[in-house]
Amino acid sequence: MKSVAELQELFNKALQSFALPDKPVSLYSPFHYMLSLGGKRLRPVLVLMACDLVCDEAERALPQALAIELFHNFTLVHDDIMDEAPLRRGLQTVHKKFSMNAAILSGDVMLVYAYVQLLQTNSSIQNAVMKLFNKTAIEVCEGQQLDVDFENRMDVTLSEYLNMITLKTSVLLAGSLKIGAMIGGANEADCDHFYAFGKHTGIAFQLQDDILDSFGDQKFGKQIGGDILMNKKTYLLISALENASPSERNELKDRLNEKNNSTEKIDAILSIYKKLKVREKAEAEKQKHFELALRHLNSLSYPGERKENLRKFAVDLLERKL
Amino acid sequence: MKSVAELQELFNKALQSFALPDKPVSLYSPFHYMLSLGGKRLRPVLVLMACDLVCDEAERALPQALAIELFHNFTLVHDDIMDEAPLRRGLQTVHKKFSMNAAILSGDVMLVYAYVQLLQTNSSIQNAVMKLFNKTAIEVCEGQQLDVDFENRMDVTLSEYLNMITLKTSVLLAGSLKIGAMIGGANEADCDHFYAFGKHTGIAFQLQDDILDSFGDQKFGKQIGGDILMNKKTYLLISALENASPSERNELKDRLNEKNNSTEKIDAILSIYKKLKVREKAEAEKQKHFELALRHLNSLSYPGERKENLRKFAVDLLERKL
Repeated sequence: MKSVAELQELFNKALQSFALPDKPVSLYSPFHYMLSLGGKRLRPVLVLMACDLVCDEAERALPQALAIELFHNFTLVHDDIMDEAPLRRGLQTVHKKFSMNAAILSGDVMLVYAYVQLLQTNSSIQNAVMKLFNKTAIEVCEGQQLDVDFENRMDVTLSEYLNMITLKTSVLLAGSLKIGAMIGGANEADCDHFYAFGKHTGIAFQLQDDILDSFGDQKFGKQIGGDILMNKKTYLLISALENASPSERNELKDRLNEKNNSTEKIDAILSIYKKLKVREKAEAEKQKHFELALRHLNSLSYPGERKENLRKFAVDLLERKL
Repeated sequence: MKSVAELQELFNKALQSFALPDKPVSLYSPFHYMLSLGGKRLRPVLVLMACDLVCDEAERALPQALAIELFHNFTLVHDDIMDEAPLRRGLQTVHKKFSMNAAILSGDVMLVYAYVQLLQTNSSIQNAVMKLFNKTAIEVCEGQQLDVDFENRMDVTLSEYLNMITLKTSVLLAGSLKIGAMIGGANEADCDHFYAFGKHTGIAFQLQDDILDSFGDQKFGKQIGGDILMNKKTYLLISALENASPSERNELKDRLNEKNNSTEKIDAILSIYKKLKVREKAEAEKQKHFELALRHLNSLSYPGERKENLRKFAVDLLERKL
């Protein structure tokens, strides 16, 4: 079995040798640029990791790992347009560096190239892999749309929120693992455990993200309060709105309506969060999903030492070591 | 064999029973809206027509016809954003009626649903059909990008232009026919003739479009000069720029730089077109491709009467009866 570092290297080599046409330059240079921005390649590494766990031949799943990374980058390029994001990984987003049109169209063609990669799947499982890929892709689009919808709603429930992050974030981690397992030749029950492990890890990861944005992390000294300033419907805010007394709710809404985006707003909302113990609630929800993830990992019909890589990966992900 | 009207009805029924999720409403209602705008359904009818010609069972190709129509609508939704088009088929474009974000995302998911349809292809030819679909989709994106690039270039050659319209318009007609023929069980040589017939018909169709926009059609009294006012690089304009004397070229460029978008500009440019006989050149090019199309139709290994539908379809298309 390969280490995470070895799998990352394996994937990065495959990505480097991934050939695209030169022309039209205006279509393919935004495409190259986006792929060159790097990132942790979490999703393709999950594809390879699952395949490696199952059959010791991670290489088999390289085309599908590439498909997943292309799909993920396609969603990032289009999401950045929708979010009007100026930066990604510290560099200009595609629509800022090139143009909105270039970002729309190079994103589109990236999605098609993901399907080109998927066609390299062994014919005996091609249909099943593509069905899962399509289902996942549809869910990711639905999740992104729900996220956009939530911006203008004050009545989002926690269950709606958990559904949204499942679709927007978790199913792609889940699908990556399951596709890798399918390529490796895992049986159906194991494939489903891989999927559930990825789904619950993804939910826990997103909840952790919400918590870190408001309460920070001493280790990294990350700036806090970005979600609060943007009135983002996080688990914390929704939980606060659900648990607030009428007067606390009014105070919260007044703060949300404040035009003055200052540290004062952050402090005021954080103090409501603390009073309502929403951090504890989010931590409990996160813990619940992390434990569910580990339960599915344990249920996989492989010896414990083979699953160690994946367990460590989930722990590191949640501790932000990846 | 079925008539074109019967095939249209067959397709429209399949489209009506095409079921999408209800939620998120904000994702699927732009999707429904776009499909409800109607149109001639040329491309899916070509899929069915080729399949019907080959095996007398047009129904077999309904999933692929739907895939092609979904793909075509995806390109229209995204192209309308890029062209900032307010209207399509006399009604608001998706990005105008909903939002740009809704148009990007519902277009994206439409493309994924095209692949969902393609997965219904018989496994023996699924890979070949999907390869052709991917190749076509990539070419259509490349063609759209070239069209955008041409807006800011004055040195586009006729051969570059013909390549652009081949990619942007013709390969989808060609691919539709070839996919239908593959589903019907045609041999490789016939499949290639279907493809070439579609490709050359598409080029002739686009050249006819260029001619009509500048010289109109007495039958329909369509308003002329839209391309001229937008300085669109049509076959006519590129041909004029290539054939003009230095002084004519300067006059043409001065006219193109005119801010005053009036009938005077149209008249002046039309008079240069007439002097340089660019209409005749475009008609000759169109005729060349139409004849090539018919030659490939003739080469199909089916009795002449089976090919009559398709021949009539091409003629009607070029005469704007469809």
